[in-house]
Amino acid sequence: MLQIDLNCDLGESFGAYKIGMDDQVIPFITSANIACGFHASDPVVMQKTVELCKQHGVQAGAHPGFPDLVGFGRRNLDVTPAEAKAMVRYQIGALYAFTKSAGIPLQHVKPHGALYNMAGKDAALARAVCEGIAEFDDGLILLGLSGSKMIEAAQTVGLKVAREVFADRGYEEDGSLVKRGKPGAMITDEDEAIARVVRMVKERKVRCVTGKDIAIEADSVCVHGDGAKALAFVAKIRKTLEENGIALKPLKEIVCSR
Amino acid sequence: MLQIDLNCDLGESFGAYKIGMDDQVIPFITSANIACGFHASDPVVMQKTVELCKQHGVQAGAHPGFPDLVGFGRRNLDVTPAEAKAMVRYQIGALYAFTKSAGIPLQHVKPHGALYNMAGKDAALARAVCEGIAEFDDGLILLGLSGSKMIEAAQTVGLKVAREVFADRGYEEDGSLVKRGKPGAMITDEDEAIARVVRMVKERKVRCVTGKDIAIEADSVCVHGDGAKALAFVAKIRKTLEENGIALKPLKEIVCSR
Amino acid sequence: MLQIDLNCDLGESFGAYKIGMDDQVIPFITSANIACGFHASDPVVMQKTVELCKQHGVQAGAHPGFPDLVGFGRRNLDVTPAEAKAMVRYQIGALYAFTKSAGIPLQHVKPHGALYNMAGKDAALARAVCEGIAEFDDGLILLGLSGSKMIEAAQTVGLKVAREVFADRGYEEDGSLVKRGKPGAMITDEDEAIARVVRMVKERKVRCVTGKDIAIEADSVCVHGDGAKALAFVAKIRKTLEENGIALKPLKEIVCSR
Amino acid sequence: MLQIDLNCDLGESFGAYKIGMDDQVIPFITSANIACGFHASDPVVMQKTVELCKQHGVQAGAHPGFPDLVGFGRRNLDVTPAEAKAMVRYQIGALYAFTKSAGIPLQHVKPHGALYNMAGKDAALARAVCEGIAEFDDGLILLGLSGSKMIEAAQTVGLKVAREVFADRGYEEDGSLVKRGKPGAMITDEDEAIARVVRMVKERKVRCVTGKDIAIEADSVCVHGDGAKALAFVAKIRKTLEENGIALKPLKEIVCSR
Repeated sequence: MLQIDLNCDLGESFGAYKIGMDDQVIPFITSANIACGFHASDPVVMQKTVELCKQHGVQAGAHPGFPDLVGFGRRNLDVTPAEAKAMVRYQIGALYAFTKSAGIPLQHVKPHGALYNMAGKDAALARAVCEGIAEFDDGLILLGLSGSKMIEAAQTVGLKVAREVFADRGYEEDGSLVKRGKPGAMITDEDEAIARVVRMVKERKVRCVTGKDIAIEADSVCVHGDGAKALAFVAKIRKTLEENGIALKPLKEIVCSR
Repeated sequence: MLQIDLNCDLGESFGAYKIGMDDQVIPFITSANIACGFHASDPVVMQKTVELCKQHGVQAGAHPGFPDLVGFGRRNLDVTPAEAKAMVRYQIGALYAFTKSAGIPLQHVKPHGALYNMAGKDAALARAVCEGIAEFDDGLILLGLSGSKMIEAAQTVGLKVAREVFADRGYEEDGSLVKRGKPGAMITDEDEAIARVVRMVKERKVRCVTGKDIAIEADSVCVHGDGAKALAFVAKIRKTLEENGIALKPLKEIVCSR
Repeated sequence: MLQIDLNCDLGESFGAYKIGMDDQVIPFITSANIACGFHASDPVVMQKTVELCKQHGVQAGAHPGFPDLVGFGRRNLDVTPAEAKAMVRYQIGALYAFTKSAGIPLQHVKPHGALYNMAGKDAALARAVCEGIAEFDDGLILLGLSGSKMIEAAQTVGLKVAREVFADRGYEEDGSLVKRGKPGAMITDEDEAIARVVRMVKERKVRCVTGKDIAIEADSVCVHGDGAKALAFVAKIRKTLEENGIALKPLKEIVCSR
Repeated sequence: MLQIDLNCDLGESFGAYKIGMDDQVIPFITSANIACGFHASDPVVMQKTVELCKQHGVQAGAHPGFPDLVGFGRRNLDVTPAEAKAMVRYQIGALYAFTKSAGIPLQHVKPHGALYNMAGKDAALARAVCEGIAEFDDGLILLGLSGSKMIEAAQTVGLKVAREVFADRGYEEDGSLVKRGKPGAMITDEDEAIARVVRMVKERKVRCVTGKDIAIEADSVCVHGDGAKALAFVAKIRKTLEENGIALKPLKEIVCSR
């Protein structure tokens, strides 16, 4: 049966600062990546976000990032693998305290921003991140860029993996994302973006920026809840996926059915 | 059988900054209060400190504090109970990630500095802190000032409690510590300090600052590892306790034997 | 001639986090209190906010707060006077770097949030804050709560002072603000709020919460730019003040004309 | 006349955390690079460090770094030029508040750690840093690695420059430092290290790692005060320089005499 997960970054507010329309996007998604206080969020926000997931039956995951609040974890930081391993472990534990207290499982871990990108390309960093997760709980699912070093590393250390794809991003022939700023980096037409995802699930292929079809595995699509347009897109992609007979399922069901 | 725990704050270094002689004090103690990254420590330091506890068979506890690194968590901060509950939970989870990964138990929680003092006197804050712990894991022991609101709150929410005493501090008639700066606040004579602890354990009494004897319960004595003098004191108090037939035991054995 | 300043907190965004509608409120105000990176803001936001003031001919002031980003500087923190003095000085200097580089003067300093409130009631803290300012530049104006310890301290150390009043807050007989939560703390009727300010300027009196008139000095009214309602109020109070023959002037003109 | 400056990083303590033996190294140096609160230091430490410089007649400079306290500003962070410009400006202003209040001049700016290294090689970043300085005060001296992009950028924007050399580091043929970890990166023999500096000043040459002599300009030597060995080295290099007829002068005298 065709199926996919819709994941979204939640809980990115901080103190008096609000980011995201968590309440409005959560009915549409199946897995939430919850910020853990390094690049965004604080303990009170984490508490509320976990409660929100519980209310909506959405699976909770940790979304650890670099300790760079002012940069929202989006700036590359030259950490050692040992630092990355420890900071990922710390953040997972912090979130786990809230999921365990709320009586819901911690489903997965998706590194955030620059850590996601760096570990996607750097095998040593990817390995450290995955060890940071697996030594804590090898039942956690690693959600990473389809085809990246993160997926390889997670499999090596014995984690279950979920492969993430992007509706609105172009792909290179090697399966990596076209760098922002380069032609073809963004898929701006919404219908085209959604059609690409449908094809990724049904045919396990995507047309890359050179015009060539490449193979791609899609367990989850990243969506956003940070504006009216983003919300409309989430509703639309969900509807189209269902119309195409693709079931929306949280990561753990997808991973276990393989 | 007479017994007591010796607890010490460990893992207070931060990045390039070093505080404490953890390697040297750990052979003498039975329980370690490990800083969790808010008032001190960072993920790499927490990783190392948990490993150190594991090597020495010392029980690990979380030492959550206020998010005030520059003030080392020693400055009162006017947090709401909800904020206190969430920040304690976050920090416990963060440390738990390291103890679980290392395969050692998390034994206890001792709030740090200003949070320890404020929650020791404020029933609502104490209750919030204890709920933050108990909802995560009601098998954790709360280590708090003997006779304080923290002990009451922990018992109310169903946590096991361990009552902490201080060798080098004077007591008021109501069992509270004489405020620093006031006459009698500090017991400067080492032999007297140790004799007071021995008496607390054997007779369950302490002579307070007014000269009157008051009842006191002592499950653990707080010691320090931040200098040669502190280390010498730890060795001496440990030796004297043993010579007086008082066994040194970690909190969990003391609490379970009651 | 009757005159008053309208001051507003600006530049409270931080990294990816946005607070306030600075662009929209700035045409209505005469002085801006610019956050300095401790309770809000970052260097890039400060740069932009100073540029905005320059473009609109609005006088820039420093708005130093406690190092409590997650609490937005609104939580009391038990700092020593020496710490307060140093942290205020640091933040003023940081903002001065931007005003000097932009070629505009630094007009005033208004402590933020909990620091404003604490120093308004604590003479030693107020003195330390004012020394922190005056030793750097005794030409700076201290903007503080009318009738508070801050005003006294500023005068003692030789700073010029500007006395701030609140349109939407009730006053006690001693001139202090009615504590939030108590009856009469907030003046919810907009027209009444504005009429009170007009009276403060014209008659130098305000009806306090007990019904008695008390004397009050008003050099500046605090307004807000954090929502559509706040913006409408600013436009309305400005219009009404002008209709009553009260000129809108920046603090430095008001202070110099005394 | 032959002359050189000895510069040292001071004021790197933070809250309860102490780094460096500032009191002991300061009698030997002529210029101090004072940390500004991003990678190290806090307002109270900055206050004390500026006072220390004043007492010893040592010239004060700002030592701005990345906002990475846990990494001590030593980890590359992928900031934009605009971010670098603003963060440098902020930190210079913060320190200036203390030097102005103390009645001593702010002599120079030396970027710290990873910012020093990155801006030394990246012309756009170097330009942004130098603009951040020059637009605030074009009388400040930029202290940067001899032969680096920082020196070029400073000259382009009209800043005075001082060229820094390292006694204990090997040089490549292009004048850059041999990367740590590579053979020849460190000059471990103290006498050789000092002899190299003497030659740099007298002959304006250094033998690089390949054995070839290259031209080098030396206005200042970086020394350290973070241990007994470092202190002994500072005393020794100072003595040897003086014995070789090389006068120890602060940067501003060296720069003005050119």
